[in-house]
Amino acid sequence: MKVFIIGSGNVATHIALRLKSADVEIAGIYSKTLENAKALADKIGVPYTNDKSAIPNADIYICSVKDDYIADVLTGASINKESLLVHTAGSVNMDILKPFSNNIGVLYPMQTFSKAKTLDWNEIPLYIEANTDNNINKLTLFAKELSPKINFATSEQRKVIHLAAVFACNFTNELYAIAHRLMTENGLPFESLFPLMEETLAKAKLMPPVKAQTGPAARNDVKVMTMQQELLNGTDKEIYKLLSKAIQRECMMYDV
Amino acid sequence: MKVFIIGSGNVATHIALRLKSADVEIAGIYSKTLENAKALADKIGVPYTNDKSAIPNADIYICSVKDDYIADVLTGASINKESLLVHTAGSVNMDILKPFSNNIGVLYPMQTFSKAKTLDWNEIPLYIEANTDNNINKLTLFAKELSPKINFATSEQRKVIHLAAVFACNFTNELYAIAHRLMTENGLPFESLFPLMEETLAKAKLMPPVKAQTGPAARNDVKVMTMQQELLNGTDKEIYKLLSKAIQRECMMYDV
Repeated sequence: MKVFIIGSGNVATHIALRLKSADVEIAGIYSKTLENAKALADKIGVPYTNDKSAIPNADIYICSVKDDYIADVLTGASINKESLLVHTAGSVNMDILKPFSNNIGVLYPMQTFSKAKTLDWNEIPLYIEANTDNNINKLTLFAKELSPKINFATSEQRKVIHLAAVFACNFTNELYAIAHRLMTENGLPFESLFPLMEETLAKAKLMPPVKAQTGPAARNDVKVMTMQQELLNGTDKEIYKLLSKAIQRECMMYDV
Repeated sequence: MKVFIIGSGNVATHIALRLKSADVEIAGIYSKTLENAKALADKIGVPYTNDKSAIPNADIYICSVKDDYIADVLTGASINKESLLVHTAGSVNMDILKPFSNNIGVLYPMQTFSKAKTLDWNEIPLYIEANTDNNINKLTLFAKELSPKINFATSEQRKVIHLAAVFACNFTNELYAIAHRLMTENGLPFESLFPLMEETLAKAKLMPPVKAQTGPAARNDVKVMTMQQELLNGTDKEIYKLLSKAIQRECMMYDV
């Protein structure tokens, strides 16, 4: 099974490194920026190109680029239409690949990838989809090289999963970023919040998060909320107001 | 050292249980609701009352009630003015206690407390403050019975710490609650988000969160953001828009 990787971003990089360590044959890396293609290809000792008409034959093409760019990058690329072509995006319909191959699928690893940090692939849930039973079998077999946690999801289900992931990861991380900024700007150690962040997550794993809610909004401590808003400006203040309102609505909705 | 606890909520309960296990003498529990006072007092085998004029003498009074209610509950309470009176609130100035004792302080445990879940007190950072050196010494000695992680913070610093905690805990938990709702309403398992939530936290502990940001807003994937908004309504949609904007601003601010 020979794999070609289109893309050189965070997800492409982590997939390439995992495949390399699993001894899967990688035919090469494409990126429109030659130095990015080279940087990743050199890490795993494979050929690279920034000429999409020169993409070599492969059994599986993995297209892992910015969602909005998938159709663009594949247009004019030399893809063998009998091979399996998959993308790795949470919110992009599988059908976007139809013009480019007869055998298409999706391999969405639900995780936040940063180049600077290694990951335990065995813990990453994969959501897969393909256009035929045969391709599902082929993709399942291949996906096992990445993670044992393989799930099936339609494009519609995957959209919900990705949306939930944006709340649980990207938006959560923005709140961490604001907390980090508030602490460091006032000469206070961000690290002292870690036990609290860990406990918040630990509780969410034990009970529905709405039942674990605490703090001024959940208690309707009006004076504290007013005072805390006065310490904030701009977008931070808007976020404070909106999320406090959301907490109160969520707690009412579930009568906790 | 004899302690009396005013309050029977989550924080009062966790403090009482911890003091009990550390063999600290507890003179009793007050709550305006007799059954709440009894429920907590029975857990630790101490007297209880809902009559604040009958609060017995103690070396330390811990007032752990809803922030807006601190002054109310202490008004008319039989507090020995020579004893140490502390509250446990993040955002309430120490001076609120001045009318009620000559010896005042704050003991703020920065953690999210739920009655249903036990906690490792050794990992909870305590922020303390008192009105004299003598009271700081007394409070430090007492606080060691709760946790070894003792820090000093003025009322102004504690306000910032509490505000950061609201973002890192309460608001984060609301995002978890939305993710939980999106998944379960669509018959998808919330548990599959756990590795992502864990990795998001693990990265925040390794690097400034703004540098770890991923997802549609950070990549400016406009089509995905538009599509994801269309899957949402009401407050969820407002949160999506505002936090996406915040991510883009945060990333620009730090040039990541």
